[in-house]
Amino acid sequence: MHAYRTHHCAALRASDVGASVRLSGWVHRKRDHGGVLFIDLRDHHGITQIVADADSPALPTLEHLRVESVVTIDGTVKARAAGTTNANLPTGEIEVFANAVTVQSAAAELPMPVAGEQDYPEEIRLRYRYLDLRRDQVHRNIMLRSAVIASIRRRMIDGGFTEFQTPILTASSPEGARDYLVPSRVHPGKFYALPQAPQMFKQLIMVAGFDRYFQIAPCFRDEDARADRSPGEFYQLDFEMSFVTQDDVFNAIEPVLSGVFEEFAEGRSVTPAGEYPRIPYKEALLKYGSDKPDLRNPLLIHDVGEQFKGSGFGLFAGLVEKGAVVRAVPAPGTAEKSRKFFDEMNEWARGEGFAGLGYATRKGSEWGGPIAKNHGEAGMNKLAETMGLGPDDGIFFAAGKEEEAAKLAGLARTRVGEQLDLLEKNAFRFCWIVDFPMFEYNDDQKKIDFSHNPFSMPQGEMGALESKDPLDILAWQYDIVCNGVELSSGAIRNHRPDIMYKAFEIAGYTRDEVDTNFAGMINAFKFGAPPHGGSAPGIDRIVMLIADEPNIREVILFPMNQKAEDLMMNAPSAVDPKQLKELNIRLVEPK
Amino acid sequence: MHAYRTHHCAALRASDVGASVRLSGWVHRKRDHGGVLFIDLRDHHGITQIVADADSPALPTLEHLRVESVVTIDGTVKARAAGTTNANLPTGEIEVFANAVTVQSAAAELPMPVAGEQDYPEEIRLRYRYLDLRRDQVHRNIMLRSAVIASIRRRMIDGGFTEFQTPILTASSPEGARDYLVPSRVHPGKFYALPQAPQMFKQLIMVAGFDRYFQIAPCFRDEDARADRSPGEFYQLDFEMSFVTQDDVFNAIEPVLSGVFEEFAEGRSVTPAGEYPRIPYKEALLKYGSDKPDLRNPLLIHDVGEQFKGSGFGLFAGLVEKGAVVRAVPAPGTAEKSRKFFDEMNEWARGEGFAGLGYATRKGSEWGGPIAKNHGEAGMNKLAETMGLGPDDGIFFAAGKEEEAAKLAGLARTRVGEQLDLLEKNAFRFCWIVDFPMFEYNDDQKKIDFSHNPFSMPQGEMGALESKDPLDILAWQYDIVCNGVELSSGAIRNHRPDIMYKAFEIAGYTRDEVDTNFAGMINAFKFGAPPHGGSAPGIDRIVMLIADEPNIREVILFPMNQKAEDLMMNAPSAVDPKQLKELNIRLVEPK
Repeated sequence: MHAYRTHHCAALRASDVGASVRLSGWVHRKRDHGGVLFIDLRDHHGITQIVADADSPALPTLEHLRVESVVTIDGTVKARAAGTTNANLPTGEIEVFANAVTVQSAAAELPMPVAGEQDYPEEIRLRYRYLDLRRDQVHRNIMLRSAVIASIRRRMIDGGFTEFQTPILTASSPEGARDYLVPSRVHPGKFYALPQAPQMFKQLIMVAGFDRYFQIAPCFRDEDARADRSPGEFYQLDFEMSFVTQDDVFNAIEPVLSGVFEEFAEGRSVTPAGEYPRIPYKEALLKYGSDKPDLRNPLLIHDVGEQFKGSGFGLFAGLVEKGAVVRAVPAPGTAEKSRKFFDEMNEWARGEGFAGLGYATRKGSEWGGPIAKNHGEAGMNKLAETMGLGPDDGIFFAAGKEEEAAKLAGLARTRVGEQLDLLEKNAFRFCWIVDFPMFEYNDDQKKIDFSHNPFSMPQGEMGALESKDPLDILAWQYDIVCNGVELSSGAIRNHRPDIMYKAFEIAGYTRDEVDTNFAGMINAFKFGAPPHGGSAPGIDRIVMLIADEPNIREVILFPMNQKAEDLMMNAPSAVDPKQLKELNIRLVEPK
Repeated sequence: MHAYRTHHCAALRASDVGASVRLSGWVHRKRDHGGVLFIDLRDHHGITQIVADADSPALPTLEHLRVESVVTIDGTVKARAAGTTNANLPTGEIEVFANAVTVQSAAAELPMPVAGEQDYPEEIRLRYRYLDLRRDQVHRNIMLRSAVIASIRRRMIDGGFTEFQTPILTASSPEGARDYLVPSRVHPGKFYALPQAPQMFKQLIMVAGFDRYFQIAPCFRDEDARADRSPGEFYQLDFEMSFVTQDDVFNAIEPVLSGVFEEFAEGRSVTPAGEYPRIPYKEALLKYGSDKPDLRNPLLIHDVGEQFKGSGFGLFAGLVEKGAVVRAVPAPGTAEKSRKFFDEMNEWARGEGFAGLGYATRKGSEWGGPIAKNHGEAGMNKLAETMGLGPDDGIFFAAGKEEEAAKLAGLARTRVGEQLDLLEKNAFRFCWIVDFPMFEYNDDQKKIDFSHNPFSMPQGEMGALESKDPLDILAWQYDIVCNGVELSSGAIRNHRPDIMYKAFEIAGYTRDEVDTNFAGMINAFKFGAPPHGGSAPGIDRIVMLIADEPNIREVILFPMNQKAEDLMMNAPSAVDPKQLKELNIRLVEPK
C-alpha cells in the first residue's frame, strides 16, 4: 500500500464500500456526536468524511488533533446510513471508518480559519496566504487562473504562434511608467531594469524573422496599486505577428479570446469570434462617452446640441452658441420613477465634479422638469424621436465642453444602466475600439503631440503624414474591450525609419532626438524590418472577468498588498550592508 | 489579395505552377546571371526562389536592393527548368517570376551577413542579435527551445500538474548564491530580491494544499557565467508534489523527461522511463569518480587499494598503509597504444593539479610499465581478473586521499573513454544519483555540517536522527543526470519542524537560530504541512543536450554576454540621477 494514499479525497464512491483504503489530507472540520467523531478530511481534490468511535484505535489521536492538521487515515469504506448522505459531495454516499491514523503534521492554533466563508482582513489573509489559499473560493480561483492560462497557451500554439521567453533583466526605457531598477554588481554604477512589457523585444523578434510570437509575459511597473492592478508585477498575453494588417491581428486573437471565455463561461454568453464590433474611437466617445464601452449596457448617447440652438432653454442654447455640446442619455421606462431618482442623478454628477446633469421626465408622453418646460413640447418630442424613445422614457443631459460632456454622459450612461438594471446578464461583450487619432493638439504647449502611441503606423503611412492635416490622421491602433474593461491596446507598428522620423517631426522632434532616444529600435529597423503588429491582453484582467472577482488579489497566488509588500515573505526588507557594498550603492535618508 | 502574402516562403509546390501569388520576405541571396536575377526570398518558414529578367518591371528595383531588405513580390509560379530543381528545398521544383515588387524595408549595409555559415565574433552576434537570429542554425535552436518547453508543459499538465506563477519581486534569502536586489521606492532602505529559485514558494504551494505544482520558472543568480550557465537569469522546470515518496517523484518525472527527449531525439536513443538506473551517491563516487556520471561511457572504476597492501610497488603500498586509496580505470584494447599515450595521460593529470596518474600496459597478457613490474605478474593478473579485463586491456591508477583519488579516477575515466572513442553514440543516458549523505564532517571547523541540503528529509526521519551516527544518515535527496550533465537536484522535503530542529541541532544550530533564519518556512509548517518533494530540471541544459550545443548562448533568444551585459539593449546602463533619488540610494565609487 502507498505510504500516504490509495485514493485522493474526492475519489471514493458507493461502489467502493467494503474496501480498505488509505487517505491523506487536512482535518477540515471535526464534529463530535457523543463518542462518535466525524472528520471532513480535505485534500486538493475534495472532501471525504472520516468516522471514528470507541471501536477505533484512531479515536484518541483524532479527538485531540486541531483542525488543519495533516493526517493519514487507514480505514474501511462504509455506506452512510440512509438520511445522512450528502448530495453536495461527490463522496457523499460513503464515509471511511478510521482503523488507524498517522499524524503527518500537527497544526498549531490557527491565525485564521480555513473552513467556512467568513471574510478576513486582507492583512491576515496575505500574511498567512498559505492558509488563505486552502479556502474553497480562492483555491478555485487560482486553479481557474492556471486553467485559463493553459487554455490561452494551447489556443495560441494551435493558431501558429510560438512562445519565447524574453529577458527580465534588461535596459531601463526612457518612456512609460516607472521602472524597477536592479543594480549591477559587475558594472558599478550601472543598472538593469525589469521590463514594463517586452514591447521592444517582441518587435525585435519580428525583425529577427520569427513570424508569430507570444508569451505569457511577466511585466513590472513601479506604480501604485488599484483594485484591477497589482503593484509590482502582472502578466500579459503578449503577442506579435509579421506581414499582417489590422484585420489579421483581429482574426488571430478573437478566436483565442472567445474560445477561452466560452470554455469557462458556465452558461454565460460570449461575443463570438468574428463578430466583435469595431467602434471608431470618435464614435465610442460620442455613443458611449468612453473608449472602454460596456456593450452589455444597451443605452446609446446622442449628440443633441443642434436641437438646442435658439431653444427656450437658454442655458443649453447659450452653451451651444459658445461651441459647447449637449449629450443626451436615455432613461427608458422611468415614467414611474420619482423626482428623487432624477435629482439624485444630478447630485451624483455634482459629486463627481461636474456642473450637473439635466433631465427631462416623461410619463405617457407628458414631459416634466424645467428643461422640457423651457424647451417646449414640440422640441422635446423631436428629441425623443431622434433618440428613438417611447412615451415613458426620460432623458438625462450632459452639457459643456465636448470632452467633459462626453465623459459625464458616459458615466451617466453607466449609472442609469445599472440603476435601471438594464445590463445584459451573464454575458461577455467584446468590442474593438479602432481608428485612434495619431496626433492631438496640446493646448498647454500650443503644439501637436502624439495622441497615444508614437510607434503605431499612421493610416495612409508616409502619404498621409505628408499631405493631411495631422489632426485628421488616424493610426492603426486598437483596444480590446470586454464588459467595459480594457484588456489591451495594440497596433500595427511603424516599422519604417523614414515614416518614424516624419511622424516625430510633426510632433516637434528632430531626427537627432529620435536617434538618441530610440536608437535600439531605429537601428534594428534599418536592416530589413517586416510590417508587423500585435497586442497584449492582460491575463489578470481576463481571469478577473471570468472568475467574476472585482479584486485582482483574488486571482493571484501570492499577491503583494496595496503598499507593494509581500507580507508572507516579508518583502521588501532591509539587506546586509555587505550586499550594498558589493553593489556600490549606499542608502540615503529620505527627506 | 492579402496585402503581404498569399503563401509563405515554404508553401509553393509544382502543383501551384501557373498561379498568381504574393510572397513577402527577406532577400536572402541574390545571384545575377547576366540579365537574369535570382533571389532567394526567405521568411520564417523557408525559402522560395524569385526570378526576374528584362521582361519584369520589378527588375530595376530588385537589382539595386541590398540583401536582407524586406520585399513583397507579386508573381507567377513557374516550374524550374529541368536540371535546375533543388531537392534540398521543399519549394525546389518551382520559382516565382516577379511581376511587381514592393519594398517594405530597404536594408542598410549589414554589420554581419545572414546567409552562409561563417563564424562571427560573439560580440557582433549579440549586439546585432536580431540579425544573428535570422541565421538558420540559431533560428532552429530557438524554435527547438520553444517546442521543447511546449512539450514539457503539455506532458506536465497531462501528468496532473498545474502551472502556477510565483512572484518575481520577492524577499532576499539568506542562503545560496548571490541575490539580485531591487530597491523599493515606496519603502526607503528596503529591497526586493529576484528569486534564485521559487523553492520556498513551491513548498508553500504544497502547504496551501495544491497537489502537484509546476512552473517553467525564471530564476536569477548574480553569479559569473560559464559555458553551461547564463549570467543573470535562467529557467527551470520547477515542480513539487504532495503526499509522495521518492519513487512517486521519479515515476512522475521520468516519463516527462524521456518523452521530451524521445520527441526530439531524431534517431538518438533515450533511456526509457521506468528504467533510469538509481546509483547511490557513494557508489557513484567509486564507480564513476563523480556524482554526475556519463553512462554513455562504459568504463567502471575499481577500488583496488586492498590488492596493493604489502605490494612490491612500494608507493601504493605505503599510501594504502596510511589510509589512502587506489582506484583503477580500465583502458581496454590499448595493446597497440604507444607509451606516449600513457605518458600523456600522466602529464594531463599533473596539469590538472594531481600528483600523477599511474598506469600498467598490457599486450597479449604481457604487462608493461613500472607499476606492473614492481607489483608482479600474479598481482597484476589478479587485478585484471577483479576488473574483468582482457589480455590487451591496460589500467590507469589514481592513488591518494579518497576524495582526490576518486576525482582523478573520474576525470581519467572520462578522458580514457573519449580518447579511446568508447562513448555510446547518439544516446541520452539518464540516471538518478540517490542516497546522498545528510551530514558530513567539516575538517576545518571540526564539526558536523549539512552535506547538501539542510531541508531534505533524513531517511528514517526522527528515529534516524536520534539513534544513528549522523555521518551514516542518508537523505531523501536525488540528482537527475543525463550524459554527465546534472539537470537538477531534488528531494523529499523535511516538512516537520520537530525533525528540522533536531537536524539543525546535530549541525550545531540552536532552535532560536533556526527560528530566526528560516522563520517563514518553519512557521508555515506549524499549521499543517503535507509530506512533499520535487525537483527542478534546468530547461536551458535540457535544450542544450537536445540541440547538441555546448554553449548556452546558442539556445537562448536574447542572451547576455559573459560579463552579464545585454549588448543589444545596452544593459546594464547608467540611469537618471532622479531615479536614484526616488529610490533613496546613491552610487559609491568602487575602490
